[in-house]
Parts: sequence; structure tokens; C-alpha cells
Amino acid sequence: MVKSKINKIYPPATIGVVGGGQLGRMIVFEAKRMGYSVVVLDPKGNSPAGQVADQQIVAGFEDIGAYRELAGKTDVITFEFEHISVEILELIENEGVKVIPSSRTLNVIQNKYKQKTMLKKIGVKVPKFSMVCNLEDLKIEFQRLNQKAILKTCTNGYDGKGNVIIKDVADLENAYHIFGEQEIFIEELIDFVKEVSIIVVNNDSGVFFYPVVENVHHNSILIKTLIPASLSHEVFHKIHIACEKIVEELNDSGVFCIEFFVDKNLEVLVNEIAPRPHNSGHYTIEGCETSQFEQLLRVVCGMPAGSTQLKTPCAMYNILGNQSVDGEYVVSELDAVLNIPNCYFHLYGKPETSNLKKIGHITALDDTVEAADYKGKKALELLTVRKRTLVSAVSNKT
Amino acid sequence: MVKSKINKIYPPATIGVVGGGQLGRMIVFEAKRMGYSVVVLDPKGNSPAGQVADQQIVAGFEDIGAYRELAGKTDVITFEFEHISVEILELIENEGVKVIPSSRTLNVIQNKYKQKTMLKKIGVKVPKFSMVCNLEDLKIEFQRLNQKAILKTCTNGYDGKGNVIIKDVADLENAYHIFGEQEIFIEELIDFVKEVSIIVVNNDSGVFFYPVVENVHHNSILIKTLIPASLSHEVFHKIHIACEKIVEELNDSGVFCIEFFVDKNLEVLVNEIAPRPHNSGHYTIEGCETSQFEQLLRVVCGMPAGSTQLKTPCAMYNILGNQSVDGEYVVSELDAVLNIPNCYFHLYGKPETSNLKKIGHITALDDTVEAADYKGKKALELLTVRKRTLVSAVSNKT
Repeated sequence: MVKSKINKIYPPATIGVVGGGQLGRMIVFEAKRMGYSVVVLDPKGNSPAGQVADQQIVAGFEDIGAYRELAGKTDVITFEFEHISVEILELIENEGVKVIPSSRTLNVIQNKYKQKTMLKKIGVKVPKFSMVCNLEDLKIEFQRLNQKAILKTCTNGYDGKGNVIIKDVADLENAYHIFGEQEIFIEELIDFVKEVSIIVVNNDSGVFFYPVVENVHHNSILIKTLIPASLSHEVFHKIHIACEKIVEELNDSGVFCIEFFVDKNLEVLVNEIAPRPHNSGHYTIEGCETSQFEQLLRVVCGMPAGSTQLKTPCAMYNILGNQSVDGEYVVSELDAVLNIPNCYFHLYGKPETSNLKKIGHITALDDTVEAADYKGKKALELLTVRKRTLVSAVSNKT
Repeated sequence: MVKSKINKIYPPATIGVVGGGQLGRMIVFEAKRMGYSVVVLDPKGNSPAGQVADQQIVAGFEDIGAYRELAGKTDVITFEFEHISVEILELIENEGVKVIPSSRTLNVIQNKYKQKTMLKKIGVKVPKFSMVCNLEDLKIEFQRLNQKAILKTCTNGYDGKGNVIIKDVADLENAYHIFGEQEIFIEELIDFVKEVSIIVVNNDSGVFFYPVVENVHHNSILIKTLIPASLSHEVFHKIHIACEKIVEELNDSGVFCIEFFVDKNLEVLVNEIAPRPHNSGHYTIEGCETSQFEQLLRVVCGMPAGSTQLKTPCAMYNILGNQSVDGEYVVSELDAVLNIPNCYFHLYGKPETSNLKKIGHITALDDTVEAADYKGKKALELLTVRKRTLVSAVSNKT
């Protein structure tokens, strides 16, 4: 299959974005700056992206009429969230609508089992994995993986949702039943020394790499990203070789994030691919000449890729909801954070928070990664996410 | 009168912005990034700022009900355009609404004659000026100013609107009648060597200066800004002294732009003050640690000022409409501009263009002002503003 040529579209053309989360919001900011119009499709009204877009179509990701409405109002469609309907995307593509990346790519990536099978086929190292159709399969495979494994849903998993780590035979049955009727697979738990990722841009004229960055997760949720990752040349080389194989195989335009484990033997294994801008690429807004969001717009509008050059070391910390606040919130003690030089504060406008929900992020820039990391950590500690009380509501009327 | 202390307001508090133009749009981008909500008041629907704000109240700048609605929906009000009703602002302030800067400041600045009188009173040099009540006044003053003068309306002038240059006695009568019933004054035409400006931030904790920049106008419309201006220490010093006197006299919180003429004797004379972010400060988005728009938000929300440090020399070029397009338009040949490294492209989403209308700007960064200027100029030449035809409309559906 050959990558199809992208038409050039100029402002004020309209971009359709499926998904109204924070990634969509940051896509909209860049699109509006460049003079494009944007229509967002998301089931939740007043979504982070919908708030800043020209229009939001409030409808489900399985609503074919909504996709057709989106197509009718826009010149090209992209997505910021992969748990959407591949079938409907394919259908509207067949009706002549341009979707970037294509439904074909989403189809391979959306299903993690299919994704890993593809990676294995093209000779890219991945953790050992196999499909689990029943409890017997699971027991056998768990032994084969030396009793350290993770169970994952094939589809719809993200931010730790859809993942269960198993470290004891006694947990197998419970873990298995959590998933109910969902398709699942089992994967070897990698004893990694680092988790890293890279944003890769693929357009009509070539493939462009952002720096490799180091990610720190807690319970499968990204806590921080350090930019650039400190790795040997050998490891960088392995990562780039794997990326080249993947983009060659996908053979599609878009912005992709590829996440890797680096193990004790300095082997690199792909954890997963996202066919869109990624949380670990937020630093590109202040840290690079071109952000990952502008880059996606350049791709979908047929414009040349921008420079992926890193301007300075950075650290990105996610602002997560905590256990003490469930519902409406206020982010206070901002003053102290805003007093830190070269530290940029982003909130996503989500109306409500809950424990571990991503509600914003901080990007700190400095001369070294260590200094940026220290600054970002301090900034995050200074912030307070509070319940919105009657008193705070008085001065927060929306 | 003592500057009143500003309350701290934290996201998701709501900011009200009077005026829906490009300055408002760039205020909204920063406010939304920081998690604030924004309601815009502007008579034209789908305004540049309204497109990205949470809500736009579509109503005139003299509509008291609209200001009250805005006040009811927001925690603090600011403005991006000074030709609005001082009386209504004062009225709502008396009803307990916080307006930053205050109506008192707007009152002094909005009327250019009053503004110049204030400047003269505090010992800040300005071009010679005097009120013109009739044609006789005009004839006498024109002679006194050596037959090189400019007639200006006291209120509502901007981007060359409301200004008429007179260089010949024969033109006096025609020029006078152009203004009809409007209050006007005459001002000495300064034979300047440079026009420069500076963005000044005043908040509860002090006064902060951005770099002094050089502006090039054509027919009173800003064509480009070069950052920083090349001036002697002596001239910088005079500018800073004048700014300090002005902010001390205004004694109000806000972001101000002060424009100066530098004459042949290297004297500095204030041309005018704007009580808001300014076209000549657009470069702060990519060129400084904190943009003038974020700075205004920090002021109105009672947050500390951010660093005004310049990161690198810049050049800002306005993208203006041309004579060949009146109405809907497409900005094409973007590809070439996007191929220029460190060159940032902004379009304001105005639905229609006309000759000399500001529809966007380009900020080019480089190691020297000359290199940035060259890059910005080239980028502007590469862009094409075309009439939106049937063909282009097919791929531009909004």
C-alpha cells in the first residue's frame, strides 16, 4: 500500500479533530494561531479542546452521523485519541474524506495485540506476549513468562486503565475475571532500566525525529519526562533503527510517539506506539522550535515539517488530581510557581478532577536536565489542587 | 489616588475582556493555557478573540447591559481596545467590579489631548500641540508649528484613522472639515530619526520593562518592529526616566505601551501611550520568557510579574491586507514561510480582509536583528493573500 499524497490546505481551511482532550486542545491552540478553523468531535460538551475550537460536535465516537457532520464541515480530519471507530473512519475515507493518519494505521495501532504482532513481524523487539483466550492459556503463559507478567486488554487501554500486573499465581484467577468479555493478552513484565520515548513525524518529504526523552511512570501514569534522555550512542542507534522500521511499515503520514523499554542488557523493546501527539511530547511547546502539535497540523495541511531541534534541556511534570478532591477544583498557590523563571504552566480546563486525572502540566527549561528537573519538581510541589468551595466559587463564577 | 491592591484569582476563575480583536485573541490563548476561562465583549460576532474564548457577548461598547452581563460572568475585567466607554467602566467599578487598568487611567489615555496635557504637566517631553476649536485657531497654530503639522481627533483614532498630515496652507481648510464635529488638536510633525516603543508592566510589587524596540510605520500603520532597538545608552536612559514618570503618574496596574520619537538631537518625545498590550509587543510571544499577554493576565489575576528577558533578537512584520482583496481571503504559499527556521506565523482568524487591515504577523528570531529582519521580510514577501474563490472555497468550508 502506498502512502497517499496530501493536499495542501491553507488558512482559513478547517481541521476536524476527533477527541476533545488536552492533546486536542493543544492542537487547536496551534491551529488557531496559524489561522485555521477547527471543529472538534467529542461526547463530552465543554471539552478541553472544544472550549477553544470554533465548534464542538457533541456526539459519541461510534456515531456515524457525527463523523459525517464533521467531514462536511472540515477539509481534513485527524484524531487525538485512538479509541475511536476504525470502521467509521474507513467508511468516510471511502466516501472521499481525507483522514490523517489513515484508518488503516489506526486499525493496526488501536489493537495492542495486533500492534505487537506487526512489530514482531518486522523484526522490532517487543516484550514476549501471547493471546489469552481462557484461564488455562493464562496459567500456562504465566509460567512461561517466569511469573512476572502484565495482562492487557487488546483495545481501549490507556493511562493504566486496562492493565493488570500479576506477580503471583494466586492472583491469576481474579485478574482474569476483571476483564470479563474483553479480548486480552499477556505480556512479559520487563525489568527495565529506563523507559524512553520519541516523537516521530512522517510526511510526504521524509521522516523527522524529535529527541529521545526519558519517562517516569507511576502505576502506568506518566509522572515526568526528562529531555533529552541520557543514553549511550549504541542505545540511541537501536532506537532510531527500530523507529525507521516502524514508520516504513506503517507507511503513513502523521505524528507518532514510540515508547521503549531499555533493559539491563541495553536492549530496546517497543512498549507501544501512539498514532498522535503524546503526553511525553508536551515539552516540545516551549522546548523545541516546532511543537508536536504544530507539526501534526503541518502534516495534515500538506505543509513542510518544522525543525525538531531542542532549544534547551527540559523537564515536564504532569499535574494530576489527588485523592482529596473529586469534582470541581481550584488550582491555587500559583504565585510561587509563576515566580520560577522559565517554567511554563498549562491547565487543560477540565471542569472536574479526580484522583490521578491529568489536569495540566508544567514544563521547566534550564541549562541542564538536572536543573530543569529540580525546577519542575519544585513547581509541582508548590501547586495546590483544592476542592472548589463556596468561598472560592464566589471568585470563580464559570 | 492610591493604586488599589489586586485580589489573587486562581484558575478556573473567569477573565472578562472588552474588545475581541487580535490582542484579545492572544490574551485568550494565554489565559486558556493557564486554565482560566474567558468571556469577551465585542460588537462583531465570531471575533478573533471570541473564536477562542469560552463565550463572546455580542454587543456594542456603549451597551451598559452588556458590561453588566460581562461583570456578572467574570471575576475581573480588562480591555484590549481603548475606544470603549469610560463612563460605563466607572459605573460598574462603583458597583464593585474590578477593572484593570481602571477607568481613571483609561479616561486620561483615551483622549489624546488629555493624555498629552498630562504628559506635559509631569515634565515628559511631547511634540508641541494645541487644541483646535475653529479654522482660525488652526491657521494660527499651523504657522506657529512652521507649517509641518498633524491634525488628530482627541478620541477614537488608531492605525492612522483620525490623523491628517498637513504640509501646506492650501490644505488647511479641507483637512479641518474632514473632522466635522469631532474634537481635534494640532500637533507638531516631528522630524524623527527613529520611532521606538517599550512595553511596561506595573503591578503591586513594582514596574518591569521589556526591551526598547524600533518601529517602522507607513501611513501611520505599523509595518515592522525590530527588537531590540539600536540606541545609545543616553537615549535608553531618557526613555526609562520618561517611563518611570508616566507609570508613577498613572499609578495603576496593567500592561502599557509607550511610544516615542527620537529626534535628530537625540531627544525623546512621547508619541502616545496605550493602556494594554500592543502590536509592537507581539514579539514577546516567542522572543521573551513571558509574553505581554501572559503578563497582563498575571497582573489582573494578582500573580507576580514574569521575566521580561529577551531570549534572542527578533523582527516582527505585520501581515496586512492589500488592495486586490476586499472580503473573504485565503493565505497561501505558506509552505515557503514554514520552511524558514525560527520564523513564527500568526493569523488572527478575521473573516474578511481589506486594504491595510492587520490580519496577522510574523515573528522571526535570529542571532542578530539584521538577520531576523531579513528573514521576516523574506517570509512576508513569500506569503500571498488571495481572494477566496469558488475553487479555494471548496477546500475551505467554514
